[in-house]
Amino acid sequence: MSLFGAIEAGGTKFVCAVGTVDGKIEERISIPTRTPEETIPKVIAFFQQHVIEAIGIGSFGPIDVDKKSNTYGNITTTPKTAWKDYPLLQTIKDAFSIPVGFNTDVNVAALGEAILGAAKGVDNCLYITVGTGIGAGAYINGELLQGLTHPEMGHILVRRHPNDAYKGRCPYHADCLEGLAAGPAIEERWGKKAIELSDKEEVWDMEGFYIAQSLMQYILVLSPKKIILGGGVMNQTHVLTYIYKYLQELLNGYLSFEEISTNIKNYIVKPGLGDNAGITGALLLAEKEWEESKASAVQ
Amino acid sequence: MSLFGAIEAGGTKFVCAVGTVDGKIEERISIPTRTPEETIPKVIAFFQQHVIEAIGIGSFGPIDVDKKSNTYGNITTTPKTAWKDYPLLQTIKDAFSIPVGFNTDVNVAALGEAILGAAKGVDNCLYITVGTGIGAGAYINGELLQGLTHPEMGHILVRRHPNDAYKGRCPYHADCLEGLAAGPAIEERWGKKAIELSDKEEVWDMEGFYIAQSLMQYILVLSPKKIILGGGVMNQTHVLTYIYKYLQELLNGYLSFEEISTNIKNYIVKPGLGDNAGITGALLLAEKEWEESKASAVQ
Repeated sequence: MSLFGAIEAGGTKFVCAVGTVDGKIEERISIPTRTPEETIPKVIAFFQQHVIEAIGIGSFGPIDVDKKSNTYGNITTTPKTAWKDYPLLQTIKDAFSIPVGFNTDVNVAALGEAILGAAKGVDNCLYITVGTGIGAGAYINGELLQGLTHPEMGHILVRRHPNDAYKGRCPYHADCLEGLAAGPAIEERWGKKAIELSDKEEVWDMEGFYIAQSLMQYILVLSPKKIILGGGVMNQTHVLTYIYKYLQELLNGYLSFEEISTNIKNYIVKPGLGDNAGITGALLLAEKEWEESKASAVQ
Repeated sequence: MSLFGAIEAGGTKFVCAVGTVDGKIEERISIPTRTPEETIPKVIAFFQQHVIEAIGIGSFGPIDVDKKSNTYGNITTTPKTAWKDYPLLQTIKDAFSIPVGFNTDVNVAALGEAILGAAKGVDNCLYITVGTGIGAGAYINGELLQGLTHPEMGHILVRRHPNDAYKGRCPYHADCLEGLAAGPAIEERWGKKAIELSDKEEVWDMEGFYIAQSLMQYILVLSPKKIILGGGVMNQTHVLTYIYKYLQELLNGYLSFEEISTNIKNYIVKPGLGDNAGITGALLLAEKEWEESKASAVQ
């Protein structure tokens, strides 16, 4: 079975792995995200030890995913200044003469979950991560969603909880979803890390209130067949109960599908691949890029 | 050139037409939407006068668009009780032994605009209608968006305008987008029909405030390459100025694309096909269904 490389480029660490398209990982390392000059040579050194056919990258963003753009494959307007405008794809391509696929971390995780995880066999799913930030990727009719750019679903507007006086911390929109419901917002609002607030019902009620609103919007716009909720904050599994409750209240019977009513626990689920959704999706992206490059070589 | 039939099934009228895939309409009629028993025989009689290869239907909804469902092609939970659970697709199929395509009125309008209208040459666009109701269709990578069901974007949540005391009129969600910004909501809030309020700046400022919020959500979720705003309310063209202003304020530079900044007037536009977006899209849907049926006959 052919070996592929996978990079999950995150804001705190780069996870690099070598594995096969059935999701089996042969070897992996985790490299702290410092400057490109410090981090990238270690990434390259790891893959140089292996014979691989292609590499897939799932990157933190925003990134340029437009194949026709001059800056395709760059990280763009990130607040992590060392990485602003960094040509991540081109750098990896220059180091290895093999196909390299490139997409967002969350789109790649959606791909992983769609092919080998909780949405296996479903041609349309949504993967959402709630952690340091909030982001989502969508797999639609077998393709990762992309238009003018990749989705930026974490920044949608939500209505304020009546008991929430916290101002929000998104530098662009203050109290958008990410500004109110990502991990750092929970910590700033309540004065403790999410993990230390496990037993505070009001914390998870409010978190569920915001996440449910975002799911309502995503469902009405995209109509996913499965929704996967990952990320560190979602390790507080009891928040799901509030999400289900508020989502059903908000939709109020408008969509008469069992996925929303009696079967909601099988509709909105945790990742089937656990923390491996992203790295598995990156392996699958590598294989996809490899197949496409073979097909275009034949033409 | 082959002739196709097109049905734009609306809540007030059924527009039926015969034409070609270049959008040229040879003949059309408009039939008032009463009960199925009264309306449908007239629809059938119209097409019986023509030699056509296939029919495309763009219907008001909600409708069942799941080809694997037992009730595929039915109008489902509409408040128009005479049409509830009506098998629109099957009835037309039974009357003619030709392929019949079926989708929502707004998805079909998106198809028309994508192939022959304002989004010609663009593989990804969003069509929104603001009229008696609010709905949207999306064309993504050459396919009409559909998952668990068709999009129901008109019912997304928006934040209330600080000066808006109107309760909203959506029977499910009260003050969702449609409940606050569709034509009947404008009329109920201000006591006059939209068309009689043309010169009232506060009306269009508030309308722009709500529509801009919905566009922000759609852009962050779907990232369309072109947005087309149709429907009766949008004939008040000056509302676009408020939409542009509020959308830029809301996004606040987060998406650094000229489509959002300097070129917004070419990004969010009126329909290129005017009131013919739906009927033209239905012709295209007919041709698509015809091609697919030929392809599956060969296999």
